[in-house]
Amino acid sequence: MSSPNESSPENLRNIDNGSERTVESVKNKISSDKNKNESANTMMIKVKSAIPRRRQDLLKWYGWGYKDTMFKFSSESAAFTGNRYSIAGKCLPHLPQWAIDNFGIDPDSPPKIPEAPSSFAESRLPENVKDELEMIAAVSVDGMDRLIRAHGQTLKDIANVRNNNFRRIPDAVIWPDCHEQVEKIVQCASRHNFVIIPFGGGTSVSGAVTCPENEPRPIVALDTSEMNSILWLDKEQLLARVQAGIVGQDLEREMRSRGFTVGHEPDSYEFSTLGGWVATRASGMKKNTYGNIEDLVVQTKVVTPKGVLEKSCRVPRVSCGPEWEHVVMGSEGCFGVVTEVVIKIRPVPAVTRYGSLVFPDWESGFWFEREVARKRLQPSSIRLMDNEQFRFGQALKLENSWGGVLLDGLKRLYITRIKGFDPLKLCVVTLLMEGTEEKVREQERALNGIAARHGGVPAGAGNGETGYTLTFVIAYLRDVAIEFDIVAESFETSVPWDRTLALCRNVKTRVRDECLARSITRFLISCRLTQTYDAGCCIYFYFGFYSGDCENPVETYEQIEEAARDEILACGGSISHHHGVGKLRKKWYAETVSEPGRQLLLAAKNALDPQNIFAVGNMAFDEHNTEHSVKSKL
Amino acid sequence: MSSPNESSPENLRNIDNGSERTVESVKNKISSDKNKNESANTMMIKVKSAIPRRRQDLLKWYGWGYKDTMFKFSSESAAFTGNRYSIAGKCLPHLPQWAIDNFGIDPDSPPKIPEAPSSFAESRLPENVKDELEMIAAVSVDGMDRLIRAHGQTLKDIANVRNNNFRRIPDAVIWPDCHEQVEKIVQCASRHNFVIIPFGGGTSVSGAVTCPENEPRPIVALDTSEMNSILWLDKEQLLARVQAGIVGQDLEREMRSRGFTVGHEPDSYEFSTLGGWVATRASGMKKNTYGNIEDLVVQTKVVTPKGVLEKSCRVPRVSCGPEWEHVVMGSEGCFGVVTEVVIKIRPVPAVTRYGSLVFPDWESGFWFEREVARKRLQPSSIRLMDNEQFRFGQALKLENSWGGVLLDGLKRLYITRIKGFDPLKLCVVTLLMEGTEEKVREQERALNGIAARHGGVPAGAGNGETGYTLTFVIAYLRDVAIEFDIVAESFETSVPWDRTLALCRNVKTRVRDECLARSITRFLISCRLTQTYDAGCCIYFYFGFYSGDCENPVETYEQIEEAARDEILACGGSISHHHGVGKLRKKWYAETVSEPGRQLLLAAKNALDPQNIFAVGNMAFDEHNTEHSVKSKL
Repeated sequence: MSSPNESSPENLRNIDNGSERTVESVKNKISSDKNKNESANTMMIKVKSAIPRRRQDLLKWYGWGYKDTMFKFSSESAAFTGNRYSIAGKCLPHLPQWAIDNFGIDPDSPPKIPEAPSSFAESRLPENVKDELEMIAAVSVDGMDRLIRAHGQTLKDIANVRNNNFRRIPDAVIWPDCHEQVEKIVQCASRHNFVIIPFGGGTSVSGAVTCPENEPRPIVALDTSEMNSILWLDKEQLLARVQAGIVGQDLEREMRSRGFTVGHEPDSYEFSTLGGWVATRASGMKKNTYGNIEDLVVQTKVVTPKGVLEKSCRVPRVSCGPEWEHVVMGSEGCFGVVTEVVIKIRPVPAVTRYGSLVFPDWESGFWFEREVARKRLQPSSIRLMDNEQFRFGQALKLENSWGGVLLDGLKRLYITRIKGFDPLKLCVVTLLMEGTEEKVREQERALNGIAARHGGVPAGAGNGETGYTLTFVIAYLRDVAIEFDIVAESFETSVPWDRTLALCRNVKTRVRDECLARSITRFLISCRLTQTYDAGCCIYFYFGFYSGDCENPVETYEQIEEAARDEILACGGSISHHHGVGKLRKKWYAETVSEPGRQLLLAAKNALDPQNIFAVGNMAFDEHNTEHSVKSKL
Repeated sequence: MSSPNESSPENLRNIDNGSERTVESVKNKISSDKNKNESANTMMIKVKSAIPRRRQDLLKWYGWGYKDTMFKFSSESAAFTGNRYSIAGKCLPHLPQWAIDNFGIDPDSPPKIPEAPSSFAESRLPENVKDELEMIAAVSVDGMDRLIRAHGQTLKDIANVRNNNFRRIPDAVIWPDCHEQVEKIVQCASRHNFVIIPFGGGTSVSGAVTCPENEPRPIVALDTSEMNSILWLDKEQLLARVQAGIVGQDLEREMRSRGFTVGHEPDSYEFSTLGGWVATRASGMKKNTYGNIEDLVVQTKVVTPKGVLEKSCRVPRVSCGPEWEHVVMGSEGCFGVVTEVVIKIRPVPAVTRYGSLVFPDWESGFWFEREVARKRLQPSSIRLMDNEQFRFGQALKLENSWGGVLLDGLKRLYITRIKGFDPLKLCVVTLLMEGTEEKVREQERALNGIAARHGGVPAGAGNGETGYTLTFVIAYLRDVAIEFDIVAESFETSVPWDRTLALCRNVKTRVRDECLARSITRFLISCRLTQTYDAGCCIYFYFGFYSGDCENPVETYEQIEEAARDEILACGGSISHHHGVGKLRKKWYAETVSEPGRQLLLAAKNALDPQNIFAVGNMAFDEHNTEHSVKSKL
């Protein structure tokens, strides 16, 4: 018998207990070593995050992303500031006209950037509890520290933070740096009956981290950002055990520097955290290769008030009754704190290639997507943008670009003149292909072949890459929009294939009807198809309107979004593909999961958190709850 | 804008509400139509099952499979009777010697086929309840009907049924044919406080359907076999809504006759049911293409005593809090009855090709499997058999075969003489590749290339096909074994890649040690690697021993299997990859899921079945429970 090392060209190792094989010896070996693999890089990797503990030093306190990065408008041109993104520092001459055409803004009007608030609600955390917490980890009761952890990124959140208008913010922030500290904090909360709200990247768009207004107990925001070490990284097993507070960009940077990738890229991944992905059931842009969060996670570790929930083995699949990992995923902070996660990693692919295809209209693009999914030929990412988004992309063209931006020069000529595509109808598919050179070439060939049958025309790699890069830039638009009295937000759904075209059409019509019924005439409703599966796809809507004439812009926006969601559900779509329920979509939770499903949620809560320490009030949970109100529901 | 029909070469349809688009119209359309798709074949397909309602007319009451199908031994030869399998009716001249070599049996001793029992425990079902149930669906209190639904297929089950030795069997059997009848039966059970045990194909190997011995209430076996219609089949969406009692072979036959396949093939799939797959978290041989049950299921419908648990939409993915489908999957009959399931289907692949590879030893075969998984190049199925199983395959050679059977003639010569493989060490990988001709050829080329680097040699398609076919035949061995005083069973686990070699070695050693400690000298312990994943694999062990000298063969077997499971867990393996917990593995449930996980299970039970109607006692549930004992645990 050859030794494992000889027979393995990759020199993988295996435990060889040889003569010392007894249950006890193996047991000891494994338990001494529960969190790491035999073949693991046993060095813990301390990660220096791109985001400092004082987030406000680097990030906007009143909106999305980096302080130095924003859109700026004048009547001649627009600019995207900073130096962090491909279009940063560039002039965008077409953007003001696009904004004028669509929303009728006055680009010369002074932008409304809010003053940082100077007064905050007093912390209700008793001194003795604060002292006790400070023995465990760093604590702050600073107003700004608390304010920026009072919310996520819904339109209402942003309106409230800009106006310093929250009726409740956390009374303190605590930064544990490991699982054991979280356990102590939760025990402390049980003893002193205060509320814990886990806080990751603060990018939630469901209201899931927003403090319940009427919570009478002290609220402590448990900021997971110091829990961001890679506990082990196993290059042979392609697994890593990572603390759940790690930020997406940090995780990806550390992995890439070692030749690996996690490949999980939600639009928020610069700021959102691993634990947040788990709690929300996140989906990434490249899920076709790397999977959604449920495909990436091998094992989670969760501190609940009733103890640590964790499967005893890191096996790839198990048949051991209900799968509690799937209750942790989607728990939205209501059961406890995710502290550690074993995730899959992959070698960085040899080749990454972008591509794009132009279709005469939305329907032909859709049928292309459908056929690709039916044949299971999806590359890492494949997204279809509607005509409004195509035109928005055109509006982002730089002054001196020849290439890299959608449909310049000859390409435009070919598509509109020779192919006869109507610029007011055509749609664009962006592609991201990964793998070996051979595989990528083959993918591209197959996709182009299918596209041709649906009237699609290849439009180059540059357009595809631009499309992806813009994803991260688009998030900054909402802030500049608010400054010009435009309220805007995105919402998404999943839908079976056979309902998709009707859903997109009906939701757009519904939003138009709702706007017109409110005398809103300057609005934009647009959608893209971002993820595909065997049984359906994910549709992302973007909606905004000029609210200068509107008495309650945020409320009006919410009414219309609610109507749109009713329409989505009526058309066979879901409550959410990957943003979760939070507080924003509580209305539809029970009907989505059925009454027994709601009872399961309440029962899980009562089993893990009977005292309602994690009183964040998402999904079916009362926001005015106390220990009593949770129990009385059961 | 072109119409969907024009733009779709596949002529897919979509709902077009056009001018009649209102929320109400859409809502009505969908709710009138909740269970079918617009593009579905709207005809319900009534399926004639291969298995009759009186199972005992076709199937053995005392063992596995068809009555007409069994191994028969004499000193000269063995035979496999019937005409249902490829080796049926054939003479197996080498098998007796293999059995003599391994277990020392006397092939001429008369086989011990039990007499069908004639007396049964009296039914405890009160007449008035029986009358009420008969108003809902067909009911039987016939002893044989009840006996064959008292158990699954564990060794203990089979020993008990052969000896008519069950301390508790169902008091009645009921055959609902639709969801609504199940609802009525469960309501009736709540009213009259009797126990329901859902019964599908009876192939459970965990004791999950076995009646708890001390249950004082009447027990009704709810046989799902009449719930076997395909409610709709949507060729465009590649989805079907199927009643959960459908048997695997029926489902696959119906799909294949229409050009589709579900592709879910657990070893039991001739007899096991869709609902059983869901309740057990089944895995199929071809999961690399079709997925395990959790990948196949889009939506389940479950009747619980607290109402119908069902997600409101058939979307491909949803972020709506904890995923209750993953609590239904693995529920092991303890929460209710799965009545309907929406599953994915796939077009029958153009090409199905078998293949096999021979490796000099287990380790080199293992590293081959590891590399294939690392590169994600798994074909539909790829399995590694150890040397003992290779030799067993040789023992199944037919008299007049030249081809189709492992390592005949020239191939044997090449492998043992020219390549120098030791016949007492070599191992075999069987492959099942599906897809287009081009894709299959490419797969084969890639796999052969990797195999070559690990010392593997292609051994032909015939060997591969034989290997797969034998899977279904091997299940019949256990019965003939019992007749010759050999007790035998299989058990399986999932394990991370880095623990696999050690686990296989340690478990085999442990079983040997346990046998020798009991003076058992004639035994066989063997394993195969049957499923591979990113993070690990599934290992199947086969263990049997000659029990002629043994006082309590079944108990002894169970002790050794228990020791083997302890060893598996100590080596980092799991409680089960796909057989579930049932009663056989209850000992390890709590440590696998952690105490909060156990509490979640009890809480789910209390939420869905507080009266403990589904008192089947699996996982963490008490087998002596009453309404009170469940509640008191919380």
